Amino acid sequence: MAPLLPTLHDPSPIRQYDRAQLKQLSDEVRACVLDNVSRTGGHLSSNLGTVELTVALHHVFNTPHDRLVWDVGHQTYPHKILTGRRERMPTLRQLGGISGFPQRTESEYDTFGTAHSSTSISAALGMAMAAKQKGEKRHAVAIIGDGALTAGMAFEALNNAGVCDCKLLVILNDNDMSISPPVGALNRYLAQLMSGNFYAAAKSVGKSVLRNAPPLFELAKRLEQHAKGMVVPATLFEQFGFNYVGPIDGHDIDSLVPTLENLKHLDGPQFLHVVTKKGQGYKLAEADPVAYHGPGKFDPQVGLVKSTTAAKQTFTQVFGQWLCDTAAHDGRLVGITPAMREGSGLVEFERRFPDRYYDVGIAEQHAVTFAAGLACEGLKPVVAIYSTFLQRAYDQLIHDVAIQNLPVVFALDRAGLVGADGATHAGAYDIPFLRCIPNMSIACPADERECRQLLTSAYEQNHPVAVRYPRGAGAGTTPHLTLDALPFGKGEVRREGQRIAILAFGTLLYPALTAAESFDATVVNMRWAKPLDVELLLQVAGTHDALVTLEEGAIMGGAGSAVVEALQAAGIQKPVLQLGLPDRFIEHGDPAKLLASIGLDADGIAAAIKKRFV
Amino acid sequence: MAPLLPTLHDPSPIRQYDRAQLKQLSDEVRACVLDNVSRTGGHLSSNLGTVELTVALHHVFNTPHDRLVWDVGHQTYPHKILTGRRERMPTLRQLGGISGFPQRTESEYDTFGTAHSSTSISAALGMAMAAKQKGEKRHAVAIIGDGALTAGMAFEALNNAGVCDCKLLVILNDNDMSISPPVGALNRYLAQLMSGNFYAAAKSVGKSVLRNAPPLFELAKRLEQHAKGMVVPATLFEQFGFNYVGPIDGHDIDSLVPTLENLKHLDGPQFLHVVTKKGQGYKLAEADPVAYHGPGKFDPQVGLVKSTTAAKQTFTQVFGQWLCDTAAHDGRLVGITPAMREGSGLVEFERRFPDRYYDVGIAEQHAVTFAAGLACEGLKPVVAIYSTFLQRAYDQLIHDVAIQNLPVVFALDRAGLVGADGATHAGAYDIPFLRCIPNMSIACPADERECRQLLTSAYEQNHPVAVRYPRGAGAGTTPHLTLDALPFGKGEVRREGQRIAILAFGTLLYPALTAAESFDATVVNMRWAKPLDVELLLQVAGTHDALVTLEEGAIMGGAGSAVVEALQAAGIQKPVLQLGLPDRFIEHGDPAKLLASIGLDADGIAAAIKKRFV
Repeated sequence: MAPLLPTLHDPSPIRQYDRAQLKQLSDEVRACVLDNVSRTGGHLSSNLGTVELTVALHHVFNTPHDRLVWDVGHQTYPHKILTGRRERMPTLRQLGGISGFPQRTESEYDTFGTAHSSTSISAALGMAMAAKQKGEKRHAVAIIGDGALTAGMAFEALNNAGVCDCKLLVILNDNDMSISPPVGALNRYLAQLMSGNFYAAAKSVGKSVLRNAPPLFELAKRLEQHAKGMVVPATLFEQFGFNYVGPIDGHDIDSLVPTLENLKHLDGPQFLHVVTKKGQGYKLAEADPVAYHGPGKFDPQVGLVKSTTAAKQTFTQVFGQWLCDTAAHDGRLVGITPAMREGSGLVEFERRFPDRYYDVGIAEQHAVTFAAGLACEGLKPVVAIYSTFLQRAYDQLIHDVAIQNLPVVFALDRAGLVGADGATHAGAYDIPFLRCIPNMSIACPADERECRQLLTSAYEQNHPVAVRYPRGAGAGTTPHLTLDALPFGKGEVRREGQRIAILAFGTLLYPALTAAESFDATVVNMRWAKPLDVELLLQVAGTHDALVTLEEGAIMGGAGSAVVEALQAAGIQKPVLQLGLPDRFIEHGDPAKLLASIGLDADGIAAAIKKRFV
Repeated sequence: MAPLLPTLHDPSPIRQYDRAQLKQLSDEVRACVLDNVSRTGGHLSSNLGTVELTVALHHVFNTPHDRLVWDVGHQTYPHKILTGRRERMPTLRQLGGISGFPQRTESEYDTFGTAHSSTSISAALGMAMAAKQKGEKRHAVAIIGDGALTAGMAFEALNNAGVCDCKLLVILNDNDMSISPPVGALNRYLAQLMSGNFYAAAKSVGKSVLRNAPPLFELAKRLEQHAKGMVVPATLFEQFGFNYVGPIDGHDIDSLVPTLENLKHLDGPQFLHVVTKKGQGYKLAEADPVAYHGPGKFDPQVGLVKSTTAAKQTFTQVFGQWLCDTAAHDGRLVGITPAMREGSGLVEFERRFPDRYYDVGIAEQHAVTFAAGLACEGLKPVVAIYSTFLQRAYDQLIHDVAIQNLPVVFALDRAGLVGADGATHAGAYDIPFLRCIPNMSIACPADERECRQLLTSAYEQNHPVAVRYPRGAGAGTTPHLTLDALPFGKGEVRREGQRIAILAFGTLLYPALTAAESFDATVVNMRWAKPLDVELLLQVAGTHDALVTLEEGAIMGGAGSAVVEALQAAGIQKPVLQLGLPDRFIEHGDPAKLLASIGLDADGIAAAIKKRFV
C-alpha cells in the first residue's frame, strides 16, 4: 500500500481508516518516531510504546473536539506526528522548534500542557465538567502511566472524578514501570495477589475478556507477569467509582479500537487499563528501555554507542559522589529521592547504602515530611530533588521543615534553565520561593569543587539548607577528595577591579569573570543567596561606584533583590543592575544558546553592563 | 475517688492506672477541656472527641519515648493537659501562651508540629524508620482524621509505609466527617457497599471482632451508620499493606486499652480504626459539632449565645457576596474550595449555584489543576483558598495555570498574620512566591470596598490573578452594590504630603494614614504588588526624599522589594525603608497585639520612619 503518513496533515482522515490502514499507519508512525529521535535525541522508549494507542485514539475520538490530555507528555511524539507536526519533528526540543511536551500554544490538539507528572486526571476532569456545564457533547481522555498514578495528586483527582457524572475516560498506560524498580505498598500487594484468591478470580475475569478478543491470546501468555495489571486496578479503581475495563494489549489495534468505541458510549467515569511495552518495535529499546528512555542522537542500525571521549563530570555526579563519601563517615546520613534515582545521581549511593536509601516514588510531598520525621530523630536527611519538583513540596518545606528548623539538606539539581525540557522544568524560582522562608539558607556553588564544599557546609548546619546547582557540567573544576567545607554565609572576591563590581550567585561567576576583563571590574563570588554576606557586600559597595548582581534564576525576588534590600537596610544608595532570568517563561533549546538569548553569557553580561554603566 | 488530674505533672503515672482510674481521668480531662475552652475559646468538638483515645495512648505507650504524631493537631488539648501543660491551658492560643497545635519547642511530648492536615503518616514513618536505623525500640503513632486521609499526601505516605518493616501504628480517628458534608468517590462507594455483598462480608468480620470484645456490643447498634468504617478501610488499608484492626469505640477505655496493647506487640505497619464522636460528652456540642468546632468564649451552662451587636463584615463575607453577585450575571463562573466552604465564605454560593460549586476535599493540588482544566474550556474558575494552603498547590499554580496563562482567580483569604492559629497558618509568603512567577498578578486591597472591586478587576483579566486579603474585618468601608472594577495595575495617592512617601500594599494603608499625620507624609495606596504601578512609583520618587514600603507579608522578596527593584531598574537612587513581616516565624496571639509587637501598627510605623528618616 502507498504510505499514508505523507498524506496526513491532520487526524480527520484517520477516522475513516479500516483496521489494515490503522496498522499500516502505526508502522509508519513508529518508523517516523525512530527516525526522528535518532537524529534529534529525545524520548524514545515511551513514544514507541504509545504508537498504536495514539492511532486508535485519533481514530475513535473526534479530536480536537474531544480532548486528549497526556500525562507527563513525553510520550506524545506519535500524537504530534499525527496532528500536523510531522514535518517539524526535526526541530524537536530545539530553540524555536516544537516542544518535547504538549503545549496549548503549539497546536489545538494539545489541549493541556503537561510535563510534571500526575496532572492529567485533574485537568481532564475539569474539561469534562466544563463540557457538562456548557451542554457540549465531547469526551475528555486522560492517558496516565502507572508511575504517575502513585502521586497523591492523582489519587485526589480519582477521588473527585469517581463521583462526577461526565464523559471522562482515564486510560492507564501500564508499561510495568520499567524505568525504575517499583516502589510502594501497592506493588507488594500486587505480588501477594499472585498466589491468592483475588488472583484466581481476577484471572478468570481476564480469561473471559480474552475469549471475546482472540488476538489477545498472545497476551494471555504474559498474564503471570502482568498479574498486577489484571487484578488490582479492577479492585482499586472500581472502589474509586470508575467502570474498569481491561487489561487490553495496547499494541493491538484490534483490541484497542472496539474497546475504545464501546467505552465512548458509556456514561460516567470510565477506566481503561492498557498494557504496553516501552520501546515496542525497536529491538534494542525493548531489550534496554532504560538506556533508550531519553537517548541523544544515534544510528538506529547500530544503536547507542558509548562515547570514547571522557565526558565532563556533571554536578549530579559531584553530588552523588559527595553523598557516598559523607555517608561513609557519618551513619546518620539518609538519602531520599522522589523517583529520580538516576537523574539525581543516587545509583551508587543505593548500591552502597541500601538501608539508608529511600526512593519514595513520585511523592515529593511525602518525601519532604518523611525527611522531617527522620530529622526529628537525629538523623541527617538529604533530599535530592530537582528545583522544579521541590515546587510540589513547598508547603511541606515550610510547615514541616522550616518552622521546626530541622536540619534537612535539599540538593536542588536542575536549578536555572534546563535546556531541551523547557519552561516546565526550569528551576527558575527556588531563590525567591526559598529566600522568604525563615530559617532557610540557600547556597549557590559556582563550580563543581564548590558544589561539593557547599554541600558539606550545608550538611554541617543545624537548620535547613538548600544547595542549588545546574543541569550538566560547569567550569570543570576538580572537587577535592576531602570533605572540606566553605564558611557558612560567606562569599569571596574573585577578581579585584575598580568602579564596577559584579556580584555573582552560582555558576554565572565564570562568564562574569570573562565579562569583567573589558571593564576591569571586580567580581565577587557571593556563594550564598541566604544568608547574604552583608559584610562583604557593604565593603564592596563602599569601594565601587556601581554593582551588578547576576544569577541564573528569576530576577524578581531573587538574590539580586536580597542585595538591593540589604543596601537599603544599610542606608546605602548605590546603582545596582540586576541580571538574571526575566519575568517570562523561557522555552526549550540548547542551554548555552538560551542563556545567550537572554544576555546571560559573557558577551551579554558585558553588553548589559556597558549599556547601563560605561 | 480523689481527683487524679491535679496530681499529674507528666503522663508516667497513667501507665499504672487501672481501668477505673483511666475512666475517671478521662472524665476529669473532658471537664478540664470544656472549662478551659469556654474561657479562652479554641477548638472544642475535636478535643472532646479525643479524650479517651489520648488517655489510652499515654497509658499504653511509653511517651515521650514512644512518639505520638497528631495530624492537624487541633485535637491535642487533652494531650497537652496530660503532658505538663494543664496549668498553662488558660494561656491557650494567646500571645506568649501555649499553642493550639503541637509544637516541638513547647514540650518533648509534642514530637512533631502539625497544623496543616495530612502530614502525620509521613512524619511518623520517618520516626519509625529512624528508630529502626538507630536500633532503638520505640513506637511511632500517627493519629489522623477521616477528612485528612483524603489528601494525596496521606496516600503517598500509606503507599510507602505499607512496605516498611517498622513499628508504625496509624490510628484513623473516624468521626464521620461531621464538619463538612463528605465529598469524593470513596464516600459514594461506602454508601453502595451498604447493600452489597461486601457489606455483608464485612459485617460478619465486624461481628467477629465484636464477639471478642464484649463492651463493644453497644457500638454494634451503630453498625448501620458506620458501615463506612466497617467495610472500606478493611479493604483499602489492607491493600496498602497494613494490618487493619477495627473499628472500635474510641470513647470506650475497655476497648481502646486492650486493642492498643495488642497492636503494640505486632510487627509491621498497623492500622487501627477508631470511631469517635465530635463533641462527645458535652450535649450541646454533640448536637451541633459544627457550631462548637472552634467557638469563642462561652458559658458552658448556657452554651453559645448569638451576639446581639452586629459584627463588622469580614473580608471573607465580602468575597462570598462578590462571588454570588458575579455568578448571577456570568454563567461562566465556577467556585472551587478545598474543603473550606465555611472558612472561605462559600456557603451561600453553594446554596444558590450548586452546579457551579466544587468542594474537592482536602486536595489543594487537584483543586488548582482542576481549575486549569475548566479554564481551558472557557469557564472562569475562582479558587477560594487560604494563602497558607496555596503553598500546597504551588507547583500546580506554576505548571498548570501560569505557564499556560489561564484566567484563574485565586481568592487568597488569611493573607498576613492570622492570630490564634499562629505561624503554621500565616499567609506571610504569597507575595514573594507568586511575584516571581511570570504571568501572575497580585492585588492587595486596602479595605472591604476595594476587595470587592479588585476581585472584579481580577476576574476581568485574561490571565491568572491572586487577590490577597486578611482574616477578619478591615477598616469597615462598605462595598458598592455594583460590580465596578479598579484599574489593573494602578495605585492611587491617598494623602498628599511632603518629603516622605509611604507606599502601602493592602490593609496596612490605614495605620499608614495615621502614622503619616505626624510627619505630613504622603501615603500611596499601591493596590497591586504585581504588576507594580511603576509610573506612579517614579512620580512619587521624583517628588519625595525618601520612601517607605509597607505590607503584611514577608519583607524578603515582597512588594517592597518590587519597589526597590523598580527604582534600580529605572536608575533612581532613593532611600527606601521596607516595613513588613520580619524573617522569623511569628507565633500565635491576638492579631492587633502581634502586629504591634513587630511594629506594624500606626505607632510602630511612625516610630520606624522617625528612627530612619526624621
